[in-house]
Amino acid sequence: MQDLGERSLDWADGCLRIVDQTRLPDAYEVLEIDRVPDLVDAIRRLAVRGAPALGVAGGFGVVLAARQHGTGTEQFREAVASIRTARPTAVNLARMVDRVAARATEGPDALLEEALAVRDEEVAASLSMGSRGAALVEQLVAENASRPAATAGGPGPDDPPGEALVAEAHGITALTICNTGGLAAVERGTALGVIRTVHEQGRLALAIAVETRPLLQGSRLTAWELEGIGAPYRLVVDSAGPALLSRGMADVVLAGADRVAANGDVANKIGTFSLALAARYAEVPFVVVAPESTVDMDTPSGDAISIEDRGADEVVNVRDPPIAPAGAEALNPAFDVTPAELITAIVTDRRVVRLDRGETLRGVSLNAGETAE
Amino acid sequence: MQDLGERSLDWADGCLRIVDQTRLPDAYEVLEIDRVPDLVDAIRRLAVRGAPALGVAGGFGVVLAARQHGTGTEQFREAVASIRTARPTAVNLARMVDRVAARATEGPDALLEEALAVRDEEVAASLSMGSRGAALVEQLVAENASRPAATAGGPGPDDPPGEALVAEAHGITALTICNTGGLAAVERGTALGVIRTVHEQGRLALAIAVETRPLLQGSRLTAWELEGIGAPYRLVVDSAGPALLSRGMADVVLAGADRVAANGDVANKIGTFSLALAARYAEVPFVVVAPESTVDMDTPSGDAISIEDRGADEVVNVRDPPIAPAGAEALNPAFDVTPAELITAIVTDRRVVRLDRGETLRGVSLNAGETAE
Repeated sequence: MQDLGERSLDWADGCLRIVDQTRLPDAYEVLEIDRVPDLVDAIRRLAVRGAPALGVAGGFGVVLAARQHGTGTEQFREAVASIRTARPTAVNLARMVDRVAARATEGPDALLEEALAVRDEEVAASLSMGSRGAALVEQLVAENASRPAATAGGPGPDDPPGEALVAEAHGITALTICNTGGLAAVERGTALGVIRTVHEQGRLALAIAVETRPLLQGSRLTAWELEGIGAPYRLVVDSAGPALLSRGMADVVLAGADRVAANGDVANKIGTFSLALAARYAEVPFVVVAPESTVDMDTPSGDAISIEDRGADEVVNVRDPPIAPAGAEALNPAFDVTPAELITAIVTDRRVVRLDRGETLRGVSLNAGETAE
Repeated sequence: MQDLGERSLDWADGCLRIVDQTRLPDAYEVLEIDRVPDLVDAIRRLAVRGAPALGVAGGFGVVLAARQHGTGTEQFREAVASIRTARPTAVNLARMVDRVAARATEGPDALLEEALAVRDEEVAASLSMGSRGAALVEQLVAENASRPAATAGGPGPDDPPGEALVAEAHGITALTICNTGGLAAVERGTALGVIRTVHEQGRLALAIAVETRPLLQGSRLTAWELEGIGAPYRLVVDSAGPALLSRGMADVVLAGADRVAANGDVANKIGTFSLALAARYAEVPFVVVAPESTVDMDTPSGDAISIEDRGADEVVNVRDPPIAPAGAEALNPAFDVTPAELITAIVTDRRVVRLDRGETLRGVSLNAGETAE
């Protein structure tokens, strides 16, 4: 076992190494994975999670499959398929497995080369999203500050007018959901990577992290990452997020994505929709941050996205003892779909799409030169 | 210790008896309380909770204070004040303490008589709310079914049109928050009392209970009560509530109230606001059920309601071990305010106020004869 430094997963000595996210924050443990079934298990039990990280893990999984079974075999095809379908909602997993596996005929070195490229591209994408997102946040907060007072559908009756404008003087309060940091990518991350950049620029007043039931990625992982970078934060229960927004206590909501559909609908962790709805009600910008690898132009809209139901156990058992009567039944949709109409902008590693201004993913072309920034 | 049957609290043998709600669903235990500090402690740690139940407990608390200290003493006044302020948001507590204490000069028998009257009125109010609320739910669901298809602000893109109309054939799916059943009142309850009545009328297809972090009244208490009456239910995490509404999976939202302001704004358990917002977006009726004892015409609007912050511990510690890094800071607003504009109707024990039709609490007079139904 070793320390992966800033990285949540990496390739070393012929092994995929993954920080076991089910053990945080109690313990930092690195899994060494050299067999496909172990990877599939790690993906299913969320030892590795987050759309970009799943893509990178899947890519290396193809390398492991080739080492176990050779590339021309039926076992190889089955192993690759088992990785590809280990979880359904994040597009990155299937996409990166396919991308790496497409080079199977070139032999094992080509597979590793491609998997390493996937990793390096995600690292570069996180940096790019961070700077692009931080600039957009400053711009949106400034736009909001210069906007005339809210009219219909505006803040609730108990909002001191202009409370959000405190941001202008003291920095930005950003609300976020789930974990979208280095643990969800390879380094730095998507939405939380933007918050980190805002913090590094000395502009973060406060990060508000919703705990993100049922698996508490917000309290277990995001709080851990925010402590690690010394950013000021407060943890809240999920349903406090919309209430705090309605009281003018955040300047922007930043969320990641498991899949962005062609029309701008976003599938993301359950709870994202309610934050988007409250942000719209409070006239607070709602920004989705995701690499191009999460944009799926083959999915026309949110209703074509498969939403994983992860079963009752995660709802009924937080920690022992169970929190509900024995045998209680539960629904456990792991994701929801936020309609494009509730999203202010989508930030990727190669562009900003201002949905609030009528821009579309088809309409705003990739700025190819910028991935190297 | 004894079994209180259907009741969550009662007076017997000179003692206030309270089902300890912090022990459910693991254990059913009855506290016998004959000293004011023990009652204040029980209220603060939520062994007894729910606006109507707090009112009843507070009333009996005045009786205990008189037995401990006599009624004319400084200690009596201090003991009464300590009960009155044990929790700030629910109006019932202070109001019923004041009502019973107002008879202090008449001696201890008058105090007990008044406290028993408060109890009996809450029992009658629950029955009345149940039948009135069930009738309103049927009416609202029928109105919604006959409404033309959603237009602006309607259901999300992935809603099969008319999915909610399944209710017409198979009964009503009602979504609810926190615990508003017999445990929150004396018997039957407010919003959950309405669901119980719908169930007894053979019309309940499904109750969806949001778990209600941080203290999980939904999973610990509401699921326990629903099992007790044999009602079909599913438990979901709080942020799944808005998502399920957006997918047309519920016909009505029923919530209780800790305080109803004169303008119809409602303070209730944190998370109520986000359900109201999603119900509006999905064009699902959002109904508040609360006795007249929770309506506070002296509070002009939601911004005059004190919102209790219960501290970080409830957020950070669900069950051991902690779910966040050691020392993690949290915000913990226990309630939120739902603006009147998001509420379809308020059902009390004496009237139905259709806010969606422009009716107001000042405009719809009490139907005095109906409390005895």
